[in-house]
Amino acid sequence: MRPLEQVIQEIKPLDEGAMAAARARQDTLTKPLGSLGRLEELSVKVAGIKGEPMPRLSRKAIVTMASDHGVAVEGVSAYPQEVTAQMVQNFLRGGAGINVLATYVGARVIVVDIGVTCTLEAHPALVSKKIAYGTQNMTQGPAMTREQAITSIEAGLEIVEKEVDKGLDIIGSGDMGIGNTTPSSAIAAVITGESVARVTGRGTGIDDRQLAHKVKVIERALSVNQPNPNDPIDVLSKVGGFEIGGLSGVILGAAARRVPIVIDGFISGAAALIATGLSPMVRDYLIASHVSVEIGHRAILDYLGLRPLFDLELRLGEGTGAALGIFLAEAAARVLTDMATFSEAGVSQA
Amino acid sequence: MRPLEQVIQEIKPLDEGAMAAARARQDTLTKPLGSLGRLEELSVKVAGIKGEPMPRLSRKAIVTMASDHGVAVEGVSAYPQEVTAQMVQNFLRGGAGINVLATYVGARVIVVDIGVTCTLEAHPALVSKKIAYGTQNMTQGPAMTREQAITSIEAGLEIVEKEVDKGLDIIGSGDMGIGNTTPSSAIAAVITGESVARVTGRGTGIDDRQLAHKVKVIERALSVNQPNPNDPIDVLSKVGGFEIGGLSGVILGAAARRVPIVIDGFISGAAALIATGLSPMVRDYLIASHVSVEIGHRAILDYLGLRPLFDLELRLGEGTGAALGIFLAEAAARVLTDMATFSEAGVSQA
Repeated sequence: MRPLEQVIQEIKPLDEGAMAAARARQDTLTKPLGSLGRLEELSVKVAGIKGEPMPRLSRKAIVTMASDHGVAVEGVSAYPQEVTAQMVQNFLRGGAGINVLATYVGARVIVVDIGVTCTLEAHPALVSKKIAYGTQNMTQGPAMTREQAITSIEAGLEIVEKEVDKGLDIIGSGDMGIGNTTPSSAIAAVITGESVARVTGRGTGIDDRQLAHKVKVIERALSVNQPNPNDPIDVLSKVGGFEIGGLSGVILGAAARRVPIVIDGFISGAAALIATGLSPMVRDYLIASHVSVEIGHRAILDYLGLRPLFDLELRLGEGTGAALGIFLAEAAARVLTDMATFSEAGVSQA
Repeated sequence: MRPLEQVIQEIKPLDEGAMAAARARQDTLTKPLGSLGRLEELSVKVAGIKGEPMPRLSRKAIVTMASDHGVAVEGVSAYPQEVTAQMVQNFLRGGAGINVLATYVGARVIVVDIGVTCTLEAHPALVSKKIAYGTQNMTQGPAMTREQAITSIEAGLEIVEKEVDKGLDIIGSGDMGIGNTTPSSAIAAVITGESVARVTGRGTGIDDRQLAHKVKVIERALSVNQPNPNDPIDVLSKVGGFEIGGLSGVILGAAARRVPIVIDGFISGAAALIATGLSPMVRDYLIASHVSVEIGHRAILDYLGLRPLFDLELRLGEGTGAALGIFLAEAAARVLTDMATFSEAGVSQA
């Protein structure tokens, strides 16, 4: 059996007992019932994911997967393709948004080259899982082979296993890849059933004319490839990207190991569509950090039935929203574990 | 001149030069223009408040002011009045929500007794600014004298001065006081001009019948006292509370010392109405952390023209929302100061 098939079988429902215990404890803490709102909900979810009534979220990681996209030649991005590799170097030197925010929340960043167009020099902080030098141009045929799609998912699974061995309580997903809102919109359109126009946005900042062109490019890719919405691997291979496949592997692998996954924005959302297509139970393991400015993200979250924790009008990717989401998840867990109960504190109840 | 009049004269507009420099720097950092959305805006605001293009927010404090309310005898809360003092003890022992969240974000908590009904034992972490053993019942006449109202504000000013002396980059406001949504709704109704019913909510968790009663109690207080909406001290003295006055002093004092103030929920919002009534420029120094479940909070934020950073359906008070807001403000400042620029990182621009 391939690792992917194994992992899918390992994913189990949330632990109802741990959730009930966490909920009961929340109601004994020194605050009006339910007054910490979504933080209380989140603490109960984390308890159910980890199978622990008093979960701790001290060991944190964010996986930032980088890859390039053949479709970039169609002029769908405001930035040249070389920026993907340049930004990987920026991640490795600690100068990017994700470095600043991950450091701030105490999460390690795992930078992964899963398909950047150039050969990156070896670096102690760079994980190489390169499948190819970018995907193929999906307007001409499939972005990748079915075998490559599965390999990309399995790369994510392997990364999670390594991180779990190091010690991991919560994981965030992040991406870097010039042009990668284009395959993400394609995946969103196929799986949610929305029109391409309704799930396609400005990415790094294209104008109206370029946006209209981007919609046409995606429509052409869908028409050429005819991805099957009921076969997530088919969708990923025909109109996806290596980092999207890799992140769906991270999601599946984390769910199998009962590690909460904080998903970032639109690209992570597309990965979540692939992952939940392969195992619907994965949905319960997802924590949606924010809703992105990128318009298709809302459609993805609605389709998955996930409510984002915040909306700060972010659209950077890299895992920056996930970093803030990890902070909130840990805040929620700390409320659950560290607050005094009414009886411990000698406070009268309502 | 009294300290309050002095402080009001010391409040100056934001530093436009620092804001322009911060905005310019944001546009050189390695991310698509504007892609960190409200974090970018917030970093620019913090730069303008502190008068520094590269502000650091490492020294953080939350002032949690506790007081009791004569109007509690009218049965406006789900909890007995003794809970105010019990919760102060809980703050001092570190068991409350604000302790957990403030510790997590690295903020010190300053617990202030400004009018609790019983005599609290001295404690190294307790600041005593007691004005009286609770306010008077505002349905029978003014909650406090005009002199007491000014003294409550000046207590807040003094606390800020002490904290600035210790080292302070950002401050949050918090409250504890059984019954204190009642004066807060009264203040909101008077100053925003909304009807009492539209700014009155369930506080710690009262039912429909109790809510209808609470609205009537507030309407009676307004009818008995006839507070003058153009005289914030009159409003505070007639239908306010000592912790509300104290927090408005914290807000005014922080603005005078160019310290960003992260306001918490509904009670802090009422304090912000008093403070901005005394000095409209104060508004620019306020960072609205969240919008509370308590319905009047939205009306206050709209009146002040402030957009909350998040909505996690909180309604605990104590400064818990402010703690999370302080975290976001520091995240925003770190992005501004710590990210690499395009030229530093050798990344191509759009």
